[in-house]
Amino acid sequence: MSETTQDVLGELAKVLEARKGASPDSSYVASLHHKGLNKILEKVGEECTEMLLAAKDAQQTGEKDELVYETADLWFHSLVALSHLGLGPDDVLQELARRFDLSGLDEKAARKPQ
Amino acid sequence: MSETTQDVLGELAKVLEARKGASPDSSYVASLHHKGLNKILEKVGEECTEMLLAAKDAQQTGEKDELVYETADLWFHSLVALSHLGLGPDDVLQELARRFDLSGLDEKAARKPQ
Amino acid sequence: MSETTQDVLGELAKVLEARKGASPDSSYVASLHHKGLNKILEKVGEECTEMLLAAKDAQQTGEKDELVYETADLWFHSLVALSHLGLGPDDVLQELARRFDLSGLDEKAARKPQ
Amino acid sequence: MSETTQDVLGELAKVLEARKGASPDSSYVASLHHKGLNKILEKVGEECTEMLLAAKDAQQTGEKDELVYETADLWFHSLVALSHLGLGPDDVLQELARRFDLSGLDEKAARKPQ
Repeated sequence: MSETTQDVLGELAKVLEARKGASPDSSYVASLHHKGLNKILEKVGEECTEMLLAAKDAQQTGEKDELVYETADLWFHSLVALSHLGLGPDDVLQELARRFDLSGLDEKAARKPQ
Repeated sequence: MSETTQDVLGELAKVLEARKGASPDSSYVASLHHKGLNKILEKVGEECTEMLLAAKDAQQTGEKDELVYETADLWFHSLVALSHLGLGPDDVLQELARRFDLSGLDEKAARKPQ
Repeated sequence: MSETTQDVLGELAKVLEARKGASPDSSYVASLHHKGLNKILEKVGEECTEMLLAAKDAQQTGEKDELVYETADLWFHSLVALSHLGLGPDDVLQELARRFDLSGLDEKAARKPQ
Repeated sequence: MSETTQDVLGELAKVLEARKGASPDSSYVASLHHKGLNKILEKVGEECTEMLLAAKDAQQTGEKDELVYETADLWFHSLVALSHLGLGPDDVLQELARRFDLSGLDEKAARKPQ
């Protein structure tokens, strides 16, 4: 992973947090939070379906831009869902690091039993 | 995001690449690649469903461990799908950085039209 | 099942067939066919997500109208997908009858190996 | 729709009801009810994903048996979910009949406002 993309999720999480408490019509994220968890999860499910279809098309045609776009949509809306429930990308990344024994795993996470 | 979790996706991508060409019975990831794209995408859809259910339960009970676990499963299997088609987390993170004008956005990505 | 609802799927299938070849702006179904299979399948995935969320809410609140509504949406859009690919409810009902050895199973279907 | 498939959903609903209260190890349906709503809904989501993939494959290859099979799985598990929550196919078919003004619509349903 290039240095420039290393902290994209961390920066994005800050943007999402800032928009969480904002006026519903100030941004798309603020409007999602205002509509509530079901609407956010509907978007997660919708983007997952679109990612699956884009992956099938990518395999058939070799054209991968749509797959990248839809995966970004899926990750983005799952981050909004996490944010809505008081979680962030760090929680998920620590879980992934734990499973794969990655060096990114911090000490606190390593000691926390699941 | 803590420094220690910054490059988890990058390290995980390396693990996934290494397992991509390995013998089917050498690891879960290798077996998924061997079974093919449909099996990988079935897992993505399955984990997305489990994440949605865990999010509903988290809202009702306040218990969030399951949601973290299922979101990790969802991101993990979407990374396996990307890897299967020759892509990686950098592609998705660059797309997210572009949309949100994050400093992580590298120059090459910034100039690429969608 | 009441006599009056017995052939709803059969009647609905006729409506769907009639709208399949019609002008895109003549009906919602015609517009879906015109947009193509991906758009139809996106709707199937979307309605499935909404059905799951409605089922979770029904269990929690006891209010079931939304679940009925979303399941109708799911079945409806899966019928549009079948119609788009030259299939209909009979194909699915024969498969269900075969599995459960129901009397509705017709002879031809009973002999067809899977 | 052939006469023989008209009441498949009605007959299937009776089978599902009979298995609802049975011992968990007496049948697959009984075991699903015993595991609870989340497990049933996970199966609905899983079968929906498999139906989407089968539809994409059917469009590409012309081979449709898998699509029929997966759609039957999707309808079947959605019927188990309805049964788990005290509903049945009639509720969904009445809703579909109402929307499309089909003759199958019974009077009681026609008068019920949504």
